[in-house]
Amino acid sequence: MRMNEINPEELWKKIREGNWSKPTAGVCDGYAQGNLVILPKEEALEFMIFAKRNPKACPMIDVLEPGEFEPLKSKGADLRRDVPLYRVYTREKGFSTRDSIEDLWRRDLVSFVLGCSFTFEAELLREGVPVRHIESGRNVPMFDTTIQCKPAGRFHGNMVVSMRPMKGKDIIKAIEITSKYPEVHGSPVHIGDPGEIGIKDLQRPDYGDSVPIHEGEIPVFWACGVTPQNVLKNADLDFFITHSPGHMFVTKIKNSDLSKG
Amino acid sequence: MRMNEINPEELWKKIREGNWSKPTAGVCDGYAQGNLVILPKEEALEFMIFAKRNPKACPMIDVLEPGEFEPLKSKGADLRRDVPLYRVYTREKGFSTRDSIEDLWRRDLVSFVLGCSFTFEAELLREGVPVRHIESGRNVPMFDTTIQCKPAGRFHGNMVVSMRPMKGKDIIKAIEITSKYPEVHGSPVHIGDPGEIGIKDLQRPDYGDSVPIHEGEIPVFWACGVTPQNVLKNADLDFFITHSPGHMFVTKIKNSDLSKG
Repeated sequence: MRMNEINPEELWKKIREGNWSKPTAGVCDGYAQGNLVILPKEEALEFMIFAKRNPKACPMIDVLEPGEFEPLKSKGADLRRDVPLYRVYTREKGFSTRDSIEDLWRRDLVSFVLGCSFTFEAELLREGVPVRHIESGRNVPMFDTTIQCKPAGRFHGNMVVSMRPMKGKDIIKAIEITSKYPEVHGSPVHIGDPGEIGIKDLQRPDYGDSVPIHEGEIPVFWACGVTPQNVLKNADLDFFITHSPGHMFVTKIKNSDLSKG
Repeated sequence: MRMNEINPEELWKKIREGNWSKPTAGVCDGYAQGNLVILPKEEALEFMIFAKRNPKACPMIDVLEPGEFEPLKSKGADLRRDVPLYRVYTREKGFSTRDSIEDLWRRDLVSFVLGCSFTFEAELLREGVPVRHIESGRNVPMFDTTIQCKPAGRFHGNMVVSMRPMKGKDIIKAIEITSKYPEVHGSPVHIGDPGEIGIKDLQRPDYGDSVPIHEGEIPVFWACGVTPQNVLKNADLDFFITHSPGHMFVTKIKNSDLSKG
């Protein structure tokens, strides 16, 4: 069974049975993958306001009621077990990774599923726009920037962006396409001079891998799902849970259903 | 000074000084008006999840942090004083109206500004689509329906809709136009047979006024901002505040800025 051909239910089962703990890039073709953020109810309202104010960095695909772990839009899933690798923060112990959070579950935990650029990258490729890091078999290069997110309560911080170098004609197509996907970061936040948004060296990303930029290409920057992880770090919380980078929650939502175009 | 020509700051000042306590239809041309919902933080997260799940009935234009009363998108306004008439619910006293809620203000209150159909009606008229209740100088007819909202925690209930009768060619235009305004109820939820959504008699609306339906016209139904008021009633809360029907919060957001088209 090829991993790109299995459906989300099959993937969830594999993960639950301990047969999949790897990153999810290329898994379950056609289905949207999501960043996961889990917070106590006490902080969840402010985080939800933060996400609402920063839709490009934190596009909310799904929000669950306190204590719930079966996403409305992914019936049958269990968010406590069906992500390949979790990252847990506690004030006492800092960060640790786990393959299940069932034993940590509490009735006051609120889960957010946030859109991820895998969805629009699939669409870019389908429309013939080359995506350098995929061509090169690497992770997308990501950078801290000086672009400030709109704060909400204790949640604040600068935007993290992902970068894809492109030629002009592809940039136009890429903007047209990604504009139709507001729930997966939407249109770019910057094009051109990296210095304008506080990036010093495109060959030294803060996260992910560097990619070559060819003659005549312009760097294009999209808001990135690493932003909420940074914002959570800044918020001085006692406890929160996210997916481990690259190990996303695979939803039952079709990529095409996230298009507003 | 004509009320349709004043700007929102001028209106807020008038209201604060006790010189305007009337409905806001036709006031401040070009500016979006909003439904107001104010809840204690304890219930606000669940209400925000409800609104997120029911964007046509509860389109969130703005959400404020607990205790805040100056909307991000309407700097200079004070939500405790700048609405012409408020409706306050307490478990002990039921409903009452007030021209200010300053003395009731608490640091745990969360304010939501929800989109209102005045915005898309202005656009329909501008594009030559006749709107019957405006032609007739009446309030829009509104109906309880059997369409269930997606529940979130204690918030649940059926959708309230507004009805505008139109000829076929105008319906097409009206759908094209309102589709571009997802933050003010968006496209219709039903067209045609009122019985299908549980409406018995179009001439006996549950709220607002009845309007004549001419030969060859089809009734078109949009989600209505009265829905959250019903949902709040169902939620068995101790305390909440809304605007009094028709007495909206006039924002500094231009109607045209709410267009996604």
